[in-house]
Amino acid sequence: MLIDNKKFETIWYDDKLECVQIIDQTKLPFELIITKLNNLEDVIIAIKEMKVRGAPLIGATAAFGVYLAFRELKNKDQMLLAIEKIKQTRPTAVNLFWAVERMVSKIDFSYANKEIEYILLKEALKICEEDKDCCKKIGENGLEIIKNISNEKKKLNILTHCNAGWLATIDWGTATAPIYYARDNNIDLHVWVDETRPRNQGASLTSYELNNEGIDNTIITDNTAGILMQRGQIDLCLVGADRVTYTGHVANKIGTFLKAVVAKEFNIPFFVAIPYSTIDWKTKNYQDIIIEERSASELRNIRGYDKDNKIKSIDIYPKESKVYNPAFDITPNKFVEALITDRGVIEAEEENIKKIKDE
Amino acid sequence: MLIDNKKFETIWYDDKLECVQIIDQTKLPFELIITKLNNLEDVIIAIKEMKVRGAPLIGATAAFGVYLAFRELKNKDQMLLAIEKIKQTRPTAVNLFWAVERMVSKIDFSYANKEIEYILLKEALKICEEDKDCCKKIGENGLEIIKNISNEKKKLNILTHCNAGWLATIDWGTATAPIYYARDNNIDLHVWVDETRPRNQGASLTSYELNNEGIDNTIITDNTAGILMQRGQIDLCLVGADRVTYTGHVANKIGTFLKAVVAKEFNIPFFVAIPYSTIDWKTKNYQDIIIEERSASELRNIRGYDKDNKIKSIDIYPKESKVYNPAFDITPNKFVEALITDRGVIEAEEENIKKIKDE
Repeated sequence: MLIDNKKFETIWYDDKLECVQIIDQTKLPFELIITKLNNLEDVIIAIKEMKVRGAPLIGATAAFGVYLAFRELKNKDQMLLAIEKIKQTRPTAVNLFWAVERMVSKIDFSYANKEIEYILLKEALKICEEDKDCCKKIGENGLEIIKNISNEKKKLNILTHCNAGWLATIDWGTATAPIYYARDNNIDLHVWVDETRPRNQGASLTSYELNNEGIDNTIITDNTAGILMQRGQIDLCLVGADRVTYTGHVANKIGTFLKAVVAKEFNIPFFVAIPYSTIDWKTKNYQDIIIEERSASELRNIRGYDKDNKIKSIDIYPKESKVYNPAFDITPNKFVEALITDRGVIEAEEENIKKIKDE
Repeated sequence: MLIDNKKFETIWYDDKLECVQIIDQTKLPFELIITKLNNLEDVIIAIKEMKVRGAPLIGATAAFGVYLAFRELKNKDQMLLAIEKIKQTRPTAVNLFWAVERMVSKIDFSYANKEIEYILLKEALKICEEDKDCCKKIGENGLEIIKNISNEKKKLNILTHCNAGWLATIDWGTATAPIYYARDNNIDLHVWVDETRPRNQGASLTSYELNNEGIDNTIITDNTAGILMQRGQIDLCLVGADRVTYTGHVANKIGTFLKAVVAKEFNIPFFVAIPYSTIDWKTKNYQDIIIEERSASELRNIRGYDKDNKIKSIDIYPKESKVYNPAFDITPNKFVEALITDRGVIEAEEENIKKIKDE
């Protein structure tokens, strides 16, 4: 999608430099910095420090990580260690494991190293292409839902949480793909963007994305959606997910669940847009999903522009204050109207989800 | 209550300096700054810029404001203007209007000016004393509730939102008074403190208060309570209010409503602690409560300590980003377990609330 009217994707392979390149998302919305990933270590840092984030993009980055690790290490035992390291960067995003396993399945040590490298790079690029196709299909499928809900007389108001935009994927996004498709189909819409503490990905990334694409949007605190729902100012909720169990429970950025419960109270449909790869075919009960707990400094320390337009980071409360910082929460399936997937719109319920499963 | 082991109240009259003194709460938790209020203008700035905040403290400050205005102006017409100005500082806090009207009713222009001054100062001080008594009674009444819910085998987990602590009143606080009473009664408890964007009064004030009083507490983002409730890590919710209609609807800091709805979903009791003066005897329907909308800069701009321990303010997203910032939301009475008042614990329902009304 567009940044300053120039077409971008979030990750790509640079043939000339022979490295992977990413947009460093920790610098947005203040600076557009392109960063090189040359080896396994770069990939691990990029994922851990959330230079790349969002389940599909983490998956794609991890895929390139397997390629870069092989190019660097080649040795089978070292590769096993490398793969473990990649898997341990972020515990909740199922795409990470999915992408790594898919890449690993392509490694046949009976081939020449150059051959394996070629296969792995091709596979990582294929994962990116597939992700773009996925998002486009989510866009098409979600467009139908938006068409059904929208009313020609009134602007459609959509609430989103965190960033499930193109910056969380390769392009288009998951939760935003239907929004971009709706815009392209001349549906008049406005997006309420949850700020999304502690990392403010809504305010910093989603609003930034939408502004660059010219889509009307307003940042609100994570506290605000309740009164908007009460007043009828939200017509539908549309979020992404880091993991959806095959039983339809949704792990997504902390705060998603609060919105889903209140949306249900007001009969506002709550949709979750995901690619197939986000479905966790192993976990049945949401209690079994490990919720990543992140550091206290993520809440306490915040970054922005000072008066002189320089990026500064400050502590907004004392270091002594105790903090608890789980990164995700779980929205049980009963609060989810439907899953918008690349394989169709399906009820968040085991029987329906299993119907789209690969054999 | 204590700050650095020294006893404080939030507002007091200094006989020697012949002025009102306040703790400038915009500087907390970083610096303890005592500020003088010498005249009407100082009072208006203090309320508008939220150097004082919290419905009861706003009321007390406004009461001193009427005294200071009279001392300065004396003239009847000018006083009417002054009173209007005070009333216009913050639109939602009903205590503000209540305190101003109470003070105005004491002005009898047939008396000598010095006499009126004396009466007004005495009345403002009386409002402060009454507020302290009120909070203590809320503490006693709330203690009974906490005793009923608490279990000797397990630490009691309380969720609170924003600051309804002693910093929002003269002393003790409303929502915190039962917590202090419970602590004094050896009940083992822990408080989850909602950060409370956009102004972070939970993280900056409530946690600061509780830390100074040695009460175990943990700051969480406003997004986090959902998963805690789901996991059974919250036993009760306890918040204050800026206004409660005589029908039991609660206007409180934005985000309160989201927590109340989710608490109801999990059958976690949601209590609202208020002094009698917070009850709005005129408004029946919550839709009729005017919700104050504050500036975009309140979300965008944030203050804290930089690396060199200097207070800096930064913009956390671009000025171009559109923002909507309502300061309060309404929790309809059906989500409220009970009101903890200085006149007893009562159901949030017209019939019961009317029973405690002064004739």
